[in-house]
Amino acid sequence: MTSTLPPRTDAPETAHPLTTAAAASTAVSTPLPLRDVVVDDAFWSPRIDQVRLRTIPVQRAQLERVGHLRALAGAPAPEDGVPHVFWDSDVAKWIEAASNSLATHPDPALDADVDAVIELLAAAQQPDGYLNTHFTTVAPEQRYTDLRDAHELYCAGHLIEAGVAHHAATGKTSLLDVVVRLADHIGTVFGRGPGQLRGYDGHEEVELALVKLARATGERRHLELASYFVEERGQEPYFFDAEAERRGTPGWFGEHFAGLDHPGRTREYLQAHAPVREQHEAVGHSVRAMYLYSAMADLALEDADDSLLQACQRLWCHLLSTRTYVTGGIGSTVVNEGFTRDYDLPTETAYAETCAAIGLVMWAQRMLRIDRDRRYGDVMELALHNAVLAGISEDGERFFYDNVLASRGGVERHEWFEVACCPPNIARLLTSLGTYAFAQAPDELLVHLHLGGSVVFETSAGQAAVDVTTTAPWGGRTTLVVTQATGAPFTLSVRVPAWASSTAVTVDGAPLEAAEHVGEDGYLSVTRTWRVGDELDLQLGVQTRRLWADPRVTSEAGHVVLTRGPFVYAAEEADNRAPLVDLRVGRRAEPRPVEVPGLPGVVGLQMRGERVVREGSGLYQDEPPHRVPTDLTLVPYYAWANRGPGEMRVWLGDAER
Amino acid sequence: MTSTLPPRTDAPETAHPLTTAAAASTAVSTPLPLRDVVVDDAFWSPRIDQVRLRTIPVQRAQLERVGHLRALAGAPAPEDGVPHVFWDSDVAKWIEAASNSLATHPDPALDADVDAVIELLAAAQQPDGYLNTHFTTVAPEQRYTDLRDAHELYCAGHLIEAGVAHHAATGKTSLLDVVVRLADHIGTVFGRGPGQLRGYDGHEEVELALVKLARATGERRHLELASYFVEERGQEPYFFDAEAERRGTPGWFGEHFAGLDHPGRTREYLQAHAPVREQHEAVGHSVRAMYLYSAMADLALEDADDSLLQACQRLWCHLLSTRTYVTGGIGSTVVNEGFTRDYDLPTETAYAETCAAIGLVMWAQRMLRIDRDRRYGDVMELALHNAVLAGISEDGERFFYDNVLASRGGVERHEWFEVACCPPNIARLLTSLGTYAFAQAPDELLVHLHLGGSVVFETSAGQAAVDVTTTAPWGGRTTLVVTQATGAPFTLSVRVPAWASSTAVTVDGAPLEAAEHVGEDGYLSVTRTWRVGDELDLQLGVQTRRLWADPRVTSEAGHVVLTRGPFVYAAEEADNRAPLVDLRVGRRAEPRPVEVPGLPGVVGLQMRGERVVREGSGLYQDEPPHRVPTDLTLVPYYAWANRGPGEMRVWLGDAER
Repeated sequence: MTSTLPPRTDAPETAHPLTTAAAASTAVSTPLPLRDVVVDDAFWSPRIDQVRLRTIPVQRAQLERVGHLRALAGAPAPEDGVPHVFWDSDVAKWIEAASNSLATHPDPALDADVDAVIELLAAAQQPDGYLNTHFTTVAPEQRYTDLRDAHELYCAGHLIEAGVAHHAATGKTSLLDVVVRLADHIGTVFGRGPGQLRGYDGHEEVELALVKLARATGERRHLELASYFVEERGQEPYFFDAEAERRGTPGWFGEHFAGLDHPGRTREYLQAHAPVREQHEAVGHSVRAMYLYSAMADLALEDADDSLLQACQRLWCHLLSTRTYVTGGIGSTVVNEGFTRDYDLPTETAYAETCAAIGLVMWAQRMLRIDRDRRYGDVMELALHNAVLAGISEDGERFFYDNVLASRGGVERHEWFEVACCPPNIARLLTSLGTYAFAQAPDELLVHLHLGGSVVFETSAGQAAVDVTTTAPWGGRTTLVVTQATGAPFTLSVRVPAWASSTAVTVDGAPLEAAEHVGEDGYLSVTRTWRVGDELDLQLGVQTRRLWADPRVTSEAGHVVLTRGPFVYAAEEADNRAPLVDLRVGRRAEPRPVEVPGLPGVVGLQMRGERVVREGSGLYQDEPPHRVPTDLTLVPYYAWANRGPGEMRVWLGDAER
Repeated sequence: MTSTLPPRTDAPETAHPLTTAAAASTAVSTPLPLRDVVVDDAFWSPRIDQVRLRTIPVQRAQLERVGHLRALAGAPAPEDGVPHVFWDSDVAKWIEAASNSLATHPDPALDADVDAVIELLAAAQQPDGYLNTHFTTVAPEQRYTDLRDAHELYCAGHLIEAGVAHHAATGKTSLLDVVVRLADHIGTVFGRGPGQLRGYDGHEEVELALVKLARATGERRHLELASYFVEERGQEPYFFDAEAERRGTPGWFGEHFAGLDHPGRTREYLQAHAPVREQHEAVGHSVRAMYLYSAMADLALEDADDSLLQACQRLWCHLLSTRTYVTGGIGSTVVNEGFTRDYDLPTETAYAETCAAIGLVMWAQRMLRIDRDRRYGDVMELALHNAVLAGISEDGERFFYDNVLASRGGVERHEWFEVACCPPNIARLLTSLGTYAFAQAPDELLVHLHLGGSVVFETSAGQAAVDVTTTAPWGGRTTLVVTQATGAPFTLSVRVPAWASSTAVTVDGAPLEAAEHVGEDGYLSVTRTWRVGDELDLQLGVQTRRLWADPRVTSEAGHVVLTRGPFVYAAEEADNRAPLVDLRVGRRAEPRPVEVPGLPGVVGLQMRGERVVREGSGLYQDEPPHRVPTDLTLVPYYAWANRGPGEMRVWLGDAER
């Protein structure tokens, strides 16, 4: 990070440039702090408002209902039962989402409520800085005895993220102080020094959180602790083997898997099978993997560590070329909540956990900082508009934990989950969307996501500001109007997605040759001395595309998927007669954008297709099926299952396969 | 059973007509005893010889190697470890296969070896008749405490079957006496009387064995015990619930499933969810289900019980119309080694346990006895030639436990299994094939399977005999030549399979109108006063057929399978370049029968097809695949994986789907 910005108390991520040299310093960028982005977007603003007005209160009520807040104050009440062992993380993610919301939408009642919850947490912190209410109230004697399963440092990581977000949003240090003490406590316990526990957590999270804390406080020691956790992972002798032997019990989740030859029992499940720089494939539990890779990318940037960056690039390439669903979802099976083998992407049994897609968005954002390339932005956009957004209902109150790509009916979102990692994860992501959409590099504003709003950013000649309006995600026009200039040149850069069928650019109405201004990184960049009122207009061609899968993806052989802009489309029983497996899509028919009954504001696609008809009966028969013309209506995948639990299919039969 | 046969010591199954009235008495038939069939068949004889000369000795050596025989004589040796809890059944099935072999191929050394193993068993029998070497040597205090999991009566059933087979083959009563004592012991322990245990075994098997014992001995008490076990199953209060509560431990397999919401923990897994007459769907562990349904069919016959027959017919219809692979394999998942839901027939993860297909053959044979209809014979033939035969390698020494219908490579047969139920099960089936192929009804010989050989059968006018020659399974000509006549009329009946594209019949060279002689039951029947040398010749049309699956079988949507005669064909990487998922089969090309390199004697199919070619790269791409002509070579499914562990697919892309 080579920013020359002065420290700013309201912008912790940019406050303390820790990086001495970046791996590719000219490309390095920094997400805009949340308070410098006012989102005003026809598609996203209502969703963010929904999170603010409905999801956050609903989740607050759920935390109350299931006893997680009562449990903070002491042992869980008998009538509540013992929550899952990492209940602190649900509370932390709620605080983070609420803080994000407070950053742009002051709300004294919510502010006070957050303060009250923070007070419970502060009171639960032990004199030595330890903070984990399960292990202080339920099983104090087991502290740090089950790093593999018990999520102690995972919880700490979410508390640290919450503390950083709360400080950034409110300027208050009430939780930041708590988590600094917690981080320092962890730093005394873990490490390679004498008497220290040379371990790491089975569920990564604390690593990326410590980087955030380092950036917020300017304290390198947090960065060094993050680096220790990342580098120690997978070193021999394997920590978890020794830990299990020491403990002599199966571990928190050990009973669950007993006697099974379960991938969860392998080191790969925990990304602890090899030192991280020697990991070449995305393996194991997919959320854990994303959080680890995010921390690796953070450290590659902070330490200008080319070898770590290359490890990230290698993992990225492997993941995206072999183990990612067309929706941006990841994780092929419930068995290990994660990866299986290359090209194994079953649709009806897809796991594609909402949290894993969020993790992919997080990792993509971090890769983009250090390795500016639109492919990261494309994936961030893809996962956000499909795999993530499917995780929440149109009314903001129901959630998918796993996201299938085909359903024979009966699949619906739920109000809450016993392990409720996904709902608050969506909430904290949507409330911080501005910081994923916009970044700044020296004398440059980067628009990663086509998101409407007003942004303020720093240049070497002072603060500048731009208003962004966009017809995305349904349309392809994005316009930047300069609202504050500096008198000196700076660059406005906007990602041109790979899906764009054409690119037309004007500056103040005068056409530019787009090809000359779109760099190898896939960003349209225009540098000049911008003046207030200047307008950069980008018109992307939005056409329906057909995509076919690599033939090694056997579950999708002979099938085609339709996309339009950032959206992957799906057929739903609400619009098409079941069974949907009988539908065929030709290669030429051009779909018409249409309104969809029951999904206001959503652009559907309508086209002529075919339906396979069988005259015979019996499980196997020698009467060949034939095809008759039919109308097909498709909806964006994210919008499915809002009109009843009917059939759904993303991949449709290719009539000419 | 309305047979008027006099008791015959060498034909135990027909020796004692227990049935007072059959549900459909005119249709009732009885399998020929093994010693009345001399198999002489170009396809099957070498396989039976292989079982006799290689498989039985290899399995004997395996029993020795893994310590199962040593364990019979006392507690398992420490170096052997404790075999799986039902090791007695492996020994019993080996005795049964060896006895079957002795019935037609006397072999003093094998005879003596069997006697020696029987001596070990006899010595292990307790004074009260109990016989289960696990529970007498390893866990004597746990006798009959875990009927759900510990397979005690399952082992008893296999011992009883072995005793019956040994007696039928050798005339010796050494093992028959042991198992009669065992059966009587079981009869004192289990039942509805005071002080009796009102339970049944979690793994059905003893029921059908007791019917065999009743038929061999003429003792109704064994039939009544079988009936008790069948009828008690699934009655409330549920026995296994009470048993688990009494025992207070998880049970033999309870730990294995602990903490999982495992179908194995449901009553359906054990077919104990409802009284058998109220069961409407084939559910749970598929081998268990087949053994139960076999016993139900046996009892329906013996007790002329229409309601039980109807339950069997209902289950048959459900199984065959919704849950059977095109190969005759059954069981869709390893999770419960059994059934999942209707139309769920995944190919790459098919379980289709070899034992389950054998169980289906057993059930089909029993249904055919009481409900003469070629559909049972068709299924018996289908399962035998595909799902069962795939379970054993061409050299007779390697086995599949589960039988996938598609492999992306790496799948191979194994020499043995920790739970080695399948290898001896194949051996006992193949060595008793004659009794599945031929049956007799009053004044009638039935040919269920087109198997060459010489058969002797009884008529009301005395013994008759027929020589059968056939070009099956590759060809369609089957000829019966009368070698012993009676001077009175009798009927020769031969199943006309549903796959036959045409049927031509001659008697002594004179054409008969086939349509007039093929009954509604699907059997060609010719009644006359047959004389020695008379010849009934049946020529079935053997053409390649294409079959399509019900569209609800989503895993096979858009795919087609090729069959020829009784065989289902598959593409293998040994003959076709991988990936096989890219192959397409047109609807018109007529395949040519060809020799297949590396599979002597096997009829392959060769035809023009297409291969999908993709020019692009990447996991998802907008360049549509196109198709180029290619040669396809297919081999019978059973013969796959004899030329290396390459890719294989039964269902191929339908070019016109």
